[in-house]
Amino acid sequence: MPTLVLIRHGQSTWNLENRFTGWWDVNLTELGIEEARTAGELMAAKGLDFDLCFTSLQTRAIKTLNLALEAMGRLWLPVEKDWHLNERHYGGLTGLNKAETAALHGDDQVKIWRRSFDIPPPAQESGSEFDLTNDRRYAGIDIPNTESLKDTIARVLPYWEARIVPELKAGKRVVISAHGNSLRSLVKHLSHISDDEIASLEIPTGQPIVYQLDGNLAATDRYYLNER
Amino acid sequence: MPTLVLIRHGQSTWNLENRFTGWWDVNLTELGIEEARTAGELMAAKGLDFDLCFTSLQTRAIKTLNLALEAMGRLWLPVEKDWHLNERHYGGLTGLNKAETAALHGDDQVKIWRRSFDIPPPAQESGSEFDLTNDRRYAGIDIPNTESLKDTIARVLPYWEARIVPELKAGKRVVISAHGNSLRSLVKHLSHISDDEIASLEIPTGQPIVYQLDGNLAATDRYYLNER
Repeated sequence: MPTLVLIRHGQSTWNLENRFTGWWDVNLTELGIEEARTAGELMAAKGLDFDLCFTSLQTRAIKTLNLALEAMGRLWLPVEKDWHLNERHYGGLTGLNKAETAALHGDDQVKIWRRSFDIPPPAQESGSEFDLTNDRRYAGIDIPNTESLKDTIARVLPYWEARIVPELKAGKRVVISAHGNSLRSLVKHLSHISDDEIASLEIPTGQPIVYQLDGNLAATDRYYLNER
Repeated sequence: MPTLVLIRHGQSTWNLENRFTGWWDVNLTELGIEEARTAGELMAAKGLDFDLCFTSLQTRAIKTLNLALEAMGRLWLPVEKDWHLNERHYGGLTGLNKAETAALHGDDQVKIWRRSFDIPPPAQESGSEFDLTNDRRYAGIDIPNTESLKDTIARVLPYWEARIVPELKAGKRVVISAHGNSLRSLVKHLSHISDDEIASLEIPTGQPIVYQLDGNLAATDRYYLNER
């Protein structure tokens, strides 16, 4: 039976500062580093093991994966890094403090931007401080200037189908280290969660989520590893 | 012009304890971690950049690469990990302290094992404490039970030709994080060093070695990055 584990990166500096992050590349905090190591130790203690790893192009997810793998003695596993697993692009909200944004635009508006399924935040202005157009890691990619959760799903799922599904079907045990919204995209798909409900499903940082899948990759069980 | 940088892993726990390590998987010391970070900072400060990374299946080399890449803001680069870049297999000497081994077998014998081109150390006994037969990372690989430098070269160079040369010829900038003897294999090949001389060429830990190559990958220059 294929095993799939999802891990949201440990706490980042902008999680701590309560800022919209999206595609901006921030590092883990000391707590985030500790969360990542603990996730690896927990997976090893519970007897989980992997053949293949996937992550985004963002430091906080890659580092979370590396720290967890090191704690498992599995730093040697192959890792594929791809922008399709990046966090949702937060558009013009990138870099803003969430409380200040609520004070400016009102709680209701911010809740719509954060929790609606298909309404994206305002687009990021070209040339803004957080514009990634000239970041070499995204060369050749049509970088979004904002994304709704629906937009995020629309780029996560084709990657899932093309790159991860074939490995799971071939019997590989897979771990994916990614972000709140790229993981929501996968959880929505695997657990058949409605458009209305998915945006409010919280994915905690650094907690391995285990999926047991059948041969057709239908989920037969999903649980937080620290609860079993 | 293709750029190639070679880095030997930072100091490992068994470097510090003066033990023959070979394929045994030991971690970096605090100094080794610092060497790796410093290597990354130096490469960034000197304006070096990469498109693709190669390393062995051994923690000390992978971690050195990860720490250097993080210091460069390049953790997102693709990394290929392969056993062909592993350290020379030290056979029955694996785990032994070098001074104790010299006391037991004599300095001359140990010098032959360490510095001859084609005389391997005694074979590792099956089932020994450091036997890697059941290590999953080497599943499907005919693990050597000892290697001379010549044996090491004989598995490093085919991998170099098959996986790294095409990338360099395609214009990719490559960094390889590996080990004293897998890097000696590459330096011997690229710098046309004789069988007699190569074994005594010391490759310091954590020092980026820069190769400038022409279109046919002939070396036009080789230097330690901290000396330019």
